[in-house]
Amino acid sequence: MAPEMDQFYRSTMAIYKSIMEQFNPALENLVYLGNNYLRAFHALSEAAEVYFSAIQKIGEQALQSPTSQILGEILVQMSDTQRHLNSDLKVVVQTFHGDLLQHMEKNTKLDMQFINDSRQHYEMEYRHRAASLEKCMSDLWRMERQRDKNTREMKESVNRLHAQMQAFVSESQRAAELEEKRRYRFLAEKHLLLSNTFLQFFGRVSAGCTGEC
Amino acid sequence: MAPEMDQFYRSTMAIYKSIMEQFNPALENLVYLGNNYLRAFHALSEAAEVYFSAIQKIGEQALQSPTSQILGEILVQMSDTQRHLNSDLKVVVQTFHGDLLQHMEKNTKLDMQFINDSRQHYEMEYRHRAASLEKCMSDLWRMERQRDKNTREMKESVNRLHAQMQAFVSESQRAAELEEKRRYRFLAEKHLLLSNTFLQFFGRVSAGCTGEC
Repeated sequence: MAPEMDQFYRSTMAIYKSIMEQFNPALENLVYLGNNYLRAFHALSEAAEVYFSAIQKIGEQALQSPTSQILGEILVQMSDTQRHLNSDLKVVVQTFHGDLLQHMEKNTKLDMQFINDSRQHYEMEYRHRAASLEKCMSDLWRMERQRDKNTREMKESVNRLHAQMQAFVSESQRAAELEEKRRYRFLAEKHLLLSNTFLQFFGRVSAGCTGEC
Repeated sequence: MAPEMDQFYRSTMAIYKSIMEQFNPALENLVYLGNNYLRAFHALSEAAEVYFSAIQKIGEQALQSPTSQILGEILVQMSDTQRHLNSDLKVVVQTFHGDLLQHMEKNTKLDMQFINDSRQHYEMEYRHRAASLEKCMSDLWRMERQRDKNTREMKESVNRLHAQMQAFVSESQRAAELEEKRRYRFLAEKHLLLSNTFLQFFGRVSAGCTGEC
């Protein structure tokens, strides 16, 4: 096979290999780490809830004292704000779970099979086309030596197959690159969305607006 | 003893009792819950660091692909931002530890002894003054019955002791209320400072400014 075809073949196969052996395991690991991250978030949220409930109880105690009533009101109000903020944050974290981790988990499972099938399909198609081309070329070579009358037609056939093979390898390479790009884009887009959700939350909090407005 | 004195005495003792048996144990519990909260924060921070390091590695992988390079840059940059944010948050959490939990822990330890001493001192002083007053009153009663010539001086003595006792119980009550108020104020002020530190952090983040500016 012509060296440039072989190079296309090897680089396309390398893309499939990279998706299968690097991207997908990395995504699977990311789902695992993301679930740890989520558990840590829930644990923090739980700890914050317990902490600010304790503050609230101290505040209620202060409310009963005639001289510390205002401080009691401040403590209860602060605890309320923090608990509101905490439950708002829980909603944001649900985005991380629902919109990101679950999608990633589903994608990795489906993708293993899909990419494996695409790679096998490409490999078979390439080998099949390469074999046809090789066969026609060796026929042509034999016919040229035998000065066969059909040499010209065979030459056209070889040229056609060669052009088709060229189109096939370059299209296949573009398709594989697109598959790779789609996966990275999915990851980048989902995380940008998540970052924006967090930024909106931070913005609401720092504007003193925690869910009520 | 006159009922109003007794009432002052009981309400002052109730304040000391409330500081010793409610406020201080609640503060001690708060230190314990705060340390749990802090540990949960560190665990979250650790989980975030690991998660975004994994994103960074995927980004670096994408950088090597000629068609996904830009997505690689986005992923690496996003991971950088999140890790910056994470280390900024660690500094904020240090405030919680250094400015709040450590103070609360130190205060509860010192306060147990201090309030116990104040309460005992008040109790002894009250009993001592009450006994002196009771003794003068019973002397006065005896002298009045015996038509003693020093009755008038004794009456003045009783009146003086009574006025001093009144001043003592009401000042002691104010002092106890102040002690109680100082403790609630300490708690409220420290937590407001903490909330502000967090709000400033959220404000910086939502303004897209995470430590570099």
